Amino acid sequence: MEPAWQPVARKNVTLTGGFWQRWTELVGNTTLKHEFDQLRHQGQLDALLLDQRLHRGLKVERPDNASASLALATATDWYWGGSIFWDSDTGKWLEAASARLEKTSDAELTGFVEWVIERLQQAQQPDGYLNSHILTWRPRHRFKNLRDLHELYCAGHLFEAAVVHFEATGQRSLLDIATRYADYLAKVFGPKEGQLPGYCGHPEIELALLRLYRVTQQPAYLELCRFFINERGKSPNYFDEEAIRRLDNRPFRPGHPGSPYAYMQADRPIREQSRVVGHAVRAMYLFAAVAELAGIDHDEELLAACHRVWDDLNQTKLYITGGIGSAAENEGFTSDYDLPNETAYAETCASIGLFLFAHRLLLLDLDSRYSDLIELALHNNILSGLSLDGKRFFYDNPLASRGQHHRVEWPWWCPCCPQNLARLILSLPGYVASVRDTVLAVHLFFDCDLAADIHGTPVTLRSQTQLPFEGQTVLTVNPKQPAHFTLAVRIPAWSENQQYRLNGAGIEPDVRKGYAHFERDWQPGDELTINFDLPVRTIRARYEVESDRGRVALSRGPLVYCVESSDNGPELDRYLLDASGNYQVSFERDVLGGVNVIRATVFREEQLAEGLYSTEPPPRKPGQVTAIPYYAWDNREPGQMQVWVRVAGG
Amino acid sequence: MEPAWQPVARKNVTLTGGFWQRWTELVGNTTLKHEFDQLRHQGQLDALLLDQRLHRGLKVERPDNASASLALATATDWYWGGSIFWDSDTGKWLEAASARLEKTSDAELTGFVEWVIERLQQAQQPDGYLNSHILTWRPRHRFKNLRDLHELYCAGHLFEAAVVHFEATGQRSLLDIATRYADYLAKVFGPKEGQLPGYCGHPEIELALLRLYRVTQQPAYLELCRFFINERGKSPNYFDEEAIRRLDNRPFRPGHPGSPYAYMQADRPIREQSRVVGHAVRAMYLFAAVAELAGIDHDEELLAACHRVWDDLNQTKLYITGGIGSAAENEGFTSDYDLPNETAYAETCASIGLFLFAHRLLLLDLDSRYSDLIELALHNNILSGLSLDGKRFFYDNPLASRGQHHRVEWPWWCPCCPQNLARLILSLPGYVASVRDTVLAVHLFFDCDLAADIHGTPVTLRSQTQLPFEGQTVLTVNPKQPAHFTLAVRIPAWSENQQYRLNGAGIEPDVRKGYAHFERDWQPGDELTINFDLPVRTIRARYEVESDRGRVALSRGPLVYCVESSDNGPELDRYLLDASGNYQVSFERDVLGGVNVIRATVFREEQLAEGLYSTEPPPRKPGQVTAIPYYAWDNREPGQMQVWVRVAGG
Repeated sequence: MEPAWQPVARKNVTLTGGFWQRWTELVGNTTLKHEFDQLRHQGQLDALLLDQRLHRGLKVERPDNASASLALATATDWYWGGSIFWDSDTGKWLEAASARLEKTSDAELTGFVEWVIERLQQAQQPDGYLNSHILTWRPRHRFKNLRDLHELYCAGHLFEAAVVHFEATGQRSLLDIATRYADYLAKVFGPKEGQLPGYCGHPEIELALLRLYRVTQQPAYLELCRFFINERGKSPNYFDEEAIRRLDNRPFRPGHPGSPYAYMQADRPIREQSRVVGHAVRAMYLFAAVAELAGIDHDEELLAACHRVWDDLNQTKLYITGGIGSAAENEGFTSDYDLPNETAYAETCASIGLFLFAHRLLLLDLDSRYSDLIELALHNNILSGLSLDGKRFFYDNPLASRGQHHRVEWPWWCPCCPQNLARLILSLPGYVASVRDTVLAVHLFFDCDLAADIHGTPVTLRSQTQLPFEGQTVLTVNPKQPAHFTLAVRIPAWSENQQYRLNGAGIEPDVRKGYAHFERDWQPGDELTINFDLPVRTIRARYEVESDRGRVALSRGPLVYCVESSDNGPELDRYLLDASGNYQVSFERDVLGGVNVIRATVFREEQLAEGLYSTEPPPRKPGQVTAIPYYAWDNREPGQMQVWVRVAGG
Repeated sequence: MEPAWQPVARKNVTLTGGFWQRWTELVGNTTLKHEFDQLRHQGQLDALLLDQRLHRGLKVERPDNASASLALATATDWYWGGSIFWDSDTGKWLEAASARLEKTSDAELTGFVEWVIERLQQAQQPDGYLNSHILTWRPRHRFKNLRDLHELYCAGHLFEAAVVHFEATGQRSLLDIATRYADYLAKVFGPKEGQLPGYCGHPEIELALLRLYRVTQQPAYLELCRFFINERGKSPNYFDEEAIRRLDNRPFRPGHPGSPYAYMQADRPIREQSRVVGHAVRAMYLFAAVAELAGIDHDEELLAACHRVWDDLNQTKLYITGGIGSAAENEGFTSDYDLPNETAYAETCASIGLFLFAHRLLLLDLDSRYSDLIELALHNNILSGLSLDGKRFFYDNPLASRGQHHRVEWPWWCPCCPQNLARLILSLPGYVASVRDTVLAVHLFFDCDLAADIHGTPVTLRSQTQLPFEGQTVLTVNPKQPAHFTLAVRIPAWSENQQYRLNGAGIEPDVRKGYAHFERDWQPGDELTINFDLPVRTIRARYEVESDRGRVALSRGPLVYCVESSDNGPELDRYLLDASGNYQVSFERDVLGGVNVIRATVFREEQLAEGLYSTEPPPRKPGQVTAIPYYAWDNREPGQMQVWVRVAGG
């Protein structure tokens, strides 16, 4: 196995304008504070709920040794984990806010962050344990139900927040909380006598331990991650054993498709896994960590499992928007090619997980199939999760709607996606490029300045692009002094032709695995101009995808398009799209924050003359539909939406 | 309101050959006996079940005054009503067998019929009451739960059997049982003090009372029918009141779509009904009786309700096969245009009910829209209920299958359809024609001889036809002496052109409401030759029918066609049918008992080169599919089936 690529660090990449800076500013200025308000409000509701239970004399477990912190918590309006994933929401929000503060000074936001960290400090137990839900609601359950209670999942998100908070601010306050907790976990979990040989029902801690390891270089964290990954799914199943220990003999997920433990990625050891199954977010978080560990350990067997899962996902279970996990029932995967549009679950977090998994694989193998999917998921299924005003969220991202599906101010039943969106968007600079030896690889095209060290040479690179709407991109390379190295640039799958000019003169790259390699002596100020063509692409799905039969989807550049009632009136399925390629693209500054719309020729199938059935084909009226980027739908009046449009001619 | 038409009686119409005689002989020789065996077997199972309950000491109510008949029943292997609809199955079978014996002497069948009638005689209570399930299993429930227990429904089928048995054999044995029971019902039910103002949850008795009235001329039966129909759906609801009386406060059909009483046609008075709702069989049986009563009473208000229900059904809730009731959940109707193909419930019995409803309306108004639907339902959704070997049954008749839907030897969970099919097919002669004043109207084209009295003139008519496969039909008219009258012949909706020749010379009819009227002085031996053209018709559904969008169905004459894997291989949805009219029709003697098959030009959508999505349209290979009559599907090896085929060109 070749050595892994090193991402150009988030802090070394600065957005300088364009599409993603606008989103970053929206999230940083609006979404983060909206989320903080919502979390605080939800915390108050939790506290109220607890009060009521206490007043009604209902049984609420209270930890003997935690009364001080609980009393304190009661006095706050934050630290009440009514839901089992409360700390993960806190963690993701802290991670997002920290990433924001790395680039932007914001006293109010800093105050919020420190206020939350203080409360975490106060709540952390002397032994290092920290979980607001368990401590508040059921302290005797500590590590008694790893299957369901999300304890290690919550820990993971606190650890990730701690890493970013430390990287961004240089402060150790949150990192110390995390390492104390992680040290405690390393004592509790493991293969030794007296340790628990368990792992979390909801993977996440694995990713987090690797991040913590990279920052602290503490081998115990790597070792614990390795243990969790290798132990997972062994027989007898740990979740069965812990259920027996807590005298819980309720049937577990009866009638759930497949093995009930497939849901939590534990129906077999990871090394034996050949398909992607179960809960989509869990699958992606786990396999992102598995891929990263495989790279660290040069573990070919683990990496092969990742590739099998990746291939299965891409060949049979991927929406064209980068959405995954088609079923609400298990928030996850079903059978091959089962990709319904209207009922697509395609959770925002699941695509974020896919982004993370693809990124880990990309760092092991510079292949554009990974970075293409990162870009696709980001610009479509992920970005659709957030409204244009930054204050409303899709949890699930269907590819068709009759007009009843809308973003909500707060997905109170499980507020996982809002903070996940925020932390991802605010972390995007860290995914732009990576370095190995003498190669700097550029994966995503943003307006940004980045600074990298290429084999000892400090190099800055300025990227200017018209993407995602037009294809011209200029990369200005500035090595501190002239230097021989390779610039490798992703050739997006959506671009059929590319033109490259170096300082105005045509140049042909060496293309390998979807990357254009330019190896040369780079001079300060060298300017590589790339023209990616952006044809409107008319996409069809494989026959087995029943919902898409007789339909096409349009995309252009990284953006998948959809038709919405706002532009096209009701009854969208009356349109039969002329797929012969007669499309008009125009940038509309005043539409949806400024987007390219695509206008396509259609026939509109009018009503039959009369009756339910007729031997006369329905009249067809020629016309035009307007398609908008999928991410931007449901930002106007409620109405229908379709990504897959019926196609004229079959 | 004009006077009603009189059907030419079943006994006066004799099939002489052709398609329907073959089916009649199959049912008479094979199906009836198969059903008798299955019922006897089921009776034995019921008895076994009762024995087990008695042995286990489970509570089984036994009637104090019925010990003699029960003891007797125990000694038989028939009279054990394990299900609440047992007597209706007995009744329908007796009706079918009696109709058979009207035309064909069959000592074995006669023996079976008499054997069953004897057992009914022994079981009938001194007061006339007769219901095997209630008497055996819960005698204290007599008329305590009209909502659920099907008592009057069962009575109705016994009455219908009694009428046909009397008409067919001239014997009063079963008719006496029926009138004793009906006399008892007329005492129990009604508006007077001490009577029950109730009606059955499952309509049927209404139809039966009218038949009993027509045979006996006993006004009490007409009066009781009128009471049931007018009382139905009044507020407060009788079903609520009887539930209170029996201290039953369980929620009734919670979560059922619409009013829970819509299911049993009792959510409002019939006169206020404007849509067809609820359980499809119940709706059709009820409205058939309502239409008939409206005719007898010249009750325009009731008739208007029938027309509203009819229109709603035809405009929004009718499958192209004549199937109705799309949902399994309520065995009935849902929302407008909700006509899924694969999950279509479209119960065989529901289409039989539609046949009966249409026939009642036809007798009040000679309009081919009624007789067209009779023919459509008969040749498609109804006939598909029976296998070509006469021994397997569809309960539900979907319009598409992935290969898992098959006829069963016995729908043991509710064996209603097999006997219903048998009684309808063996009664078909009674639906061929009707008479009013000086008009003889021919509705269905069978090879048959019929004898009618037209305003005092005895007339025989010989019908010879190539239908349902070819359109030539010859009607030879033989008045006893030359006479002036009108022969009115239905012009089928599927025929775009008709040629009429009288004794070889062209003749033009007077067309009114879809019937070709020939008024003249008829001479013995006059021969009317009709050529109905039978183009293959390419049918489309209204836009609102989502399942049929981008699809067409083929039909020819009265037969709707389908494609099956047997002829066309797997993955039927790969075919895109060229709807421009290039069809080849050929009669294949050895296929499915001899049918016309339709061969149509198609493109076969081949696999994408690779992957889940592609910008290349899938290759299309020109080819041909073979379509067979819908009724004949699933008579070969298991496989897929589709009525609605994707259409090339959108």
